[in-house]
Amino acid sequence: MLIDTTYPKSFASDNHAGVHPAVLEAMASANAGDAPAYGGDDWTSAFERQIKHIFGEQANGFAVLNGAGANLIGLALSLGRFDSIICPESAHIATHETGAAERLLGVKLTPVPTIDGKLRPNDITDRLHVLGAHHEVQPTVVSISQVTELGTCYTPDEIAALAETAHSANLRLHVDGARLSNAAAHLDCDLRTITTDAGVDIFSFGGTKNGAMAAEAVILLDPSLSKAVPFLRRQSLQLASKMRFISAQLTALLTDDLWRQNATHANTMAHRLADGVKDLPDVGIAFPVESNAVFASLPRDAVRTLKERFRFEYWDENINLVRWMTAFDATPDHVDDFLAAIRKAVTR
Amino acid sequence: MLIDTTYPKSFASDNHAGVHPAVLEAMASANAGDAPAYGGDDWTSAFERQIKHIFGEQANGFAVLNGAGANLIGLALSLGRFDSIICPESAHIATHETGAAERLLGVKLTPVPTIDGKLRPNDITDRLHVLGAHHEVQPTVVSISQVTELGTCYTPDEIAALAETAHSANLRLHVDGARLSNAAAHLDCDLRTITTDAGVDIFSFGGTKNGAMAAEAVILLDPSLSKAVPFLRRQSLQLASKMRFISAQLTALLTDDLWRQNATHANTMAHRLADGVKDLPDVGIAFPVESNAVFASLPRDAVRTLKERFRFEYWDENINLVRWMTAFDATPDHVDDFLAAIRKAVTR
Amino acid sequence: MLIDTTYPKSFASDNHAGVHPAVLEAMASANAGDAPAYGGDDWTSAFERQIKHIFGEQANGFAVLNGAGANLIGLALSLGRFDSIICPESAHIATHETGAAERLLGVKLTPVPTIDGKLRPNDITDRLHVLGAHHEVQPTVVSISQVTELGTCYTPDEIAALAETAHSANLRLHVDGARLSNAAAHLDCDLRTITTDAGVDIFSFGGTKNGAMAAEAVILLDPSLSKAVPFLRRQSLQLASKMRFISAQLTALLTDDLWRQNATHANTMAHRLADGVKDLPDVGIAFPVESNAVFASLPRDAVRTLKERFRFEYWDENINLVRWMTAFDATPDHVDDFLAAIRKAVTR
Amino acid sequence: MLIDTTYPKSFASDNHAGVHPAVLEAMASANAGDAPAYGGDDWTSAFERQIKHIFGEQANGFAVLNGAGANLIGLALSLGRFDSIICPESAHIATHETGAAERLLGVKLTPVPTIDGKLRPNDITDRLHVLGAHHEVQPTVVSISQVTELGTCYTPDEIAALAETAHSANLRLHVDGARLSNAAAHLDCDLRTITTDAGVDIFSFGGTKNGAMAAEAVILLDPSLSKAVPFLRRQSLQLASKMRFISAQLTALLTDDLWRQNATHANTMAHRLADGVKDLPDVGIAFPVESNAVFASLPRDAVRTLKERFRFEYWDENINLVRWMTAFDATPDHVDDFLAAIRKAVTR
Repeated sequence: MLIDTTYPKSFASDNHAGVHPAVLEAMASANAGDAPAYGGDDWTSAFERQIKHIFGEQANGFAVLNGAGANLIGLALSLGRFDSIICPESAHIATHETGAAERLLGVKLTPVPTIDGKLRPNDITDRLHVLGAHHEVQPTVVSISQVTELGTCYTPDEIAALAETAHSANLRLHVDGARLSNAAAHLDCDLRTITTDAGVDIFSFGGTKNGAMAAEAVILLDPSLSKAVPFLRRQSLQLASKMRFISAQLTALLTDDLWRQNATHANTMAHRLADGVKDLPDVGIAFPVESNAVFASLPRDAVRTLKERFRFEYWDENINLVRWMTAFDATPDHVDDFLAAIRKAVTR
Repeated sequence: MLIDTTYPKSFASDNHAGVHPAVLEAMASANAGDAPAYGGDDWTSAFERQIKHIFGEQANGFAVLNGAGANLIGLALSLGRFDSIICPESAHIATHETGAAERLLGVKLTPVPTIDGKLRPNDITDRLHVLGAHHEVQPTVVSISQVTELGTCYTPDEIAALAETAHSANLRLHVDGARLSNAAAHLDCDLRTITTDAGVDIFSFGGTKNGAMAAEAVILLDPSLSKAVPFLRRQSLQLASKMRFISAQLTALLTDDLWRQNATHANTMAHRLADGVKDLPDVGIAFPVESNAVFASLPRDAVRTLKERFRFEYWDENINLVRWMTAFDATPDHVDDFLAAIRKAVTR
Repeated sequence: MLIDTTYPKSFASDNHAGVHPAVLEAMASANAGDAPAYGGDDWTSAFERQIKHIFGEQANGFAVLNGAGANLIGLALSLGRFDSIICPESAHIATHETGAAERLLGVKLTPVPTIDGKLRPNDITDRLHVLGAHHEVQPTVVSISQVTELGTCYTPDEIAALAETAHSANLRLHVDGARLSNAAAHLDCDLRTITTDAGVDIFSFGGTKNGAMAAEAVILLDPSLSKAVPFLRRQSLQLASKMRFISAQLTALLTDDLWRQNATHANTMAHRLADGVKDLPDVGIAFPVESNAVFASLPRDAVRTLKERFRFEYWDENINLVRWMTAFDATPDHVDDFLAAIRKAVTR
Repeated sequence: MLIDTTYPKSFASDNHAGVHPAVLEAMASANAGDAPAYGGDDWTSAFERQIKHIFGEQANGFAVLNGAGANLIGLALSLGRFDSIICPESAHIATHETGAAERLLGVKLTPVPTIDGKLRPNDITDRLHVLGAHHEVQPTVVSISQVTELGTCYTPDEIAALAETAHSANLRLHVDGARLSNAAAHLDCDLRTITTDAGVDIFSFGGTKNGAMAAEAVILLDPSLSKAVPFLRRQSLQLASKMRFISAQLTALLTDDLWRQNATHANTMAHRLADGVKDLPDVGIAFPVESNAVFASLPRDAVRTLKERFRFEYWDENINLVRWMTAFDATPDHVDDFLAAIRKAVTR
């Protein structure tokens, strides 16, 4: 059955993009007859070696199916029966995973209000007075997102400060890295600089938003935690039987820094978009543009007009805040076409 | 990174096979620029229409990522806080999903010993005396596998009898259809005959073992249950953001009965294998060959010799029982090569 | 073994009090030879009749072991797999039950900041925009405490307004009534006025803080919900085998309005305490005194001095806020003795 | 409200008995004014010291509200997210706790068929082949009941053998000691002989069936596990605010070996009952009488006749198997009266 559909360019999410050709090619190439299932194949071994190469010998990577799955498995390793997660109020795990943390992990989130999506060390220390009180849940892990849900990035120093604060209270630091590539591209650093070298304990590396079809990695820097992951991955419904096709996607992105090329391009397109509206008096940029997201406020009428032709998200309807996202496949023409429409909508 | 691997033909599982070319082509074809995420795309709509076309207008299909996920979501719909599932002792949900039912659904399984993997109506009625006793879990759903874990098939009448027994006690009938195609091919009937028409309430349709990369469907025949599935799918980590690539796989298999072609071929290869050993005095066939699995017992030495060259599973080492599986991509030559090795191994 | 201990009068919590003599007598009187276990006894039947007599024929009461258990069972009835509870940030279920809601119910709490512990109708409506969005948990129940955790009371009209708002969005209204008696005493109304007649769906009636040893009731006004409770109570570890001794405690409190006598006395003692400090310039009363709790702020030094002799809680050390509670067994002399010490401590 | 009920002597369960006068007296004596809540009181400290005195300095005891709660907390300490419990098929946790292990702990039980309710070492070793296989749950604890659900007792040597087998595979041994007293009385040994000295890791000591109102203890022999218990107890709804009244019950039973006196008496009454029927040709004793339970088979008509006047349980109606239990408060006259009725019923 041929589906002959062409959707207009979307600024709603980087997951509206398709698959990078190199990823698709890698998947086709992995379709080479029979192979062991559940990760016992050479494509998966190659992925696992790449992770050690990039993040250090102590790093162990596990391919999974989606970002919520990567978060759940990564967090599960630090959480017992009466524990809690300190995270920003805007965290994806707190807002957009249909309560998976509570239902599947059985833990409480302790959400912290933030201005820009970024947690600060004192946000942790302020919530540690409950330690030891048996009527209250016990924080054992701090979870941040890099890039944050508001498009901002933690610097390596900011992450290191959070790690130090967490570790000094015996908590682990977890990073939801659904857009880790975009952060490394923005910061112009290695992936390792904002993870292994900054003291992160457990993190995810997002492939899907970077050009994969459906592939993410959970990465652990403490080898003693690795033993549990295969069980957790299987039980959490995050293991594909034909795992080689998941691993091949990640391998394609991690080879020759394709991840950086894709992320840098997406970020550049976001800056082009932000730059194009900065002089419009009716448009405000809400947060620093540090990745592939632009949060803008503009008149309600303009939003309505724009939504007739373009897909993007109302982030907060009460304050007319919208989110525009770009992906690896956006072209300058796409952005300029959108910019022209924005200009027209706000100047009517 | 090019992985240049060639594994020998595997008889270990139908998930050692690769992806059918038509499926891969459908996925590439879905890579047509941007599209709405999370299933709001035309490929997913096409899949949903196919399900109604095949299983009836009351049927609603939801694409998911793997068989364990399909089972979990399908079963969740019938299970409250103190409920239980009646299933054969050999059920996949009871043995090979790392306790996902207990952990993620929080329910008890009531496993029933069987001779051939098939539940009988009195296996249900025998376990209903607990209804109403508040110290005991309450069965609310019966779950069977079609094909069973032992390679046998339920006839439409056998399913209808189970459905009637379940319904008369107010229980639902769930079918783990990871190999539903193989059953329909063996029984030479429509998919609908062993599901909708036989009184099944909820079932899965397995794509992965039939030639997909990673795609299964949860199908409900009671439309009132459908509202909950998007929430359950999201929370259970079974929703892909780029859902079109999952839907496209299922669509490819459901178009022009590719599923039947693949399943018939796999079944034929299993029969070829079973026929080839039936005259060997040291080899016994343990269960009727009614799908793409052959369960055979043969001398321990022969197993050891064969395992040096071929992949297959020891099903029960205590009784020298092995499982040989065939998939859509096995050729007569593959089977004959294996047969020659078996003959040699048992006649040494 | 004789424990010969005498603790000083405590103002830390009404659960520091002992057991009212009439309750102890009722328990001893229930020790009349053998009786059916698990609630099949006449003491439990008598309790169940009392509940109908007090709250209406549609009311069904179930005796349980403690307040957290009563909350858990009462809330479980309204919560599916992807649901959430809207409650004040100060709610006992959110702060002092070691994450039981998340762990045992698997749901998310949506805590709402309040000024005085009391939820308002717009606190509900403001959180309903997520309804239908399958990436977000779905609120199905609103839970309030009467008396609130800050010692304040909802008027019957305030409860009715919350019930109406909840019901119009298809949510249920649950009341944590650990101190329901104190509210009815303060409002000078029947228990029924603030529950059945105000539109509450499910609530608890607290016995322990009112003079019982360990006995609470879960009360439902929708008879169709009752069938599940025995199963939930057993599974949630809230069923005593010798249930008659739990029922007898509740019966004692519900007979001849002993609950009101105890609550009124406790409230009166709190007012005596609040009245005694209101003219002290260094002592501020933080919330209206509408039950048996006084929240006061006073100099840190005074707190330290007082804590040498008296037990009470630091509610918020950052703002020098303390909580003083009175119970059925406090005497005017106890209060006056404490008042003398407070006066001395603040005037040093 | 006076409930003036007299039920006939029950042989249905030892939890149909009332409360031993010494226990009631201890509770009344604990009602001495105010005391710290949640276990910070002298009655609880006294109980904790008794546990160390009886079971060894490394033992830590925690008072809880019921047997199911004691089991749940005791087992939780050994169970992670993908673990399982090996236990006899007849185990209380497997059959009569409404799936609390699956719901509240999220784990699978691996029930083992037994002849007499007793697990053997090879029942453990036979189930260890799954260790390391990530599609299967991992056994981490063996749970047995002493007295078993069929009224039989493990000898100290039998327990030691199970402990050794469990430990050599890195599993813990848990004992559901709801009737631990009856076992020690039957074996004529100290409580310590069948727990600490036999290599048990975690066990419960049942108060309720021994003459308490509602009081059990969870006892741990590995002090490093103790830290988690207060959190688990609170979260699992097993903490009473007025804890002193729970502790006082246990203290009463543990003082001057009242537990042994009560258990010995109950056991003696069971033997009197068994001895009284052993010569009746139509009555068969199903299991060795080693505690306070007699399992007998007798004609269906006789059961029907007896049930008109006496309470007891049909254990398995298919084979006419009944259970008769005696408690601390049964008198020789009660037993003889029942025996006369049995004789009459079977000889009609």
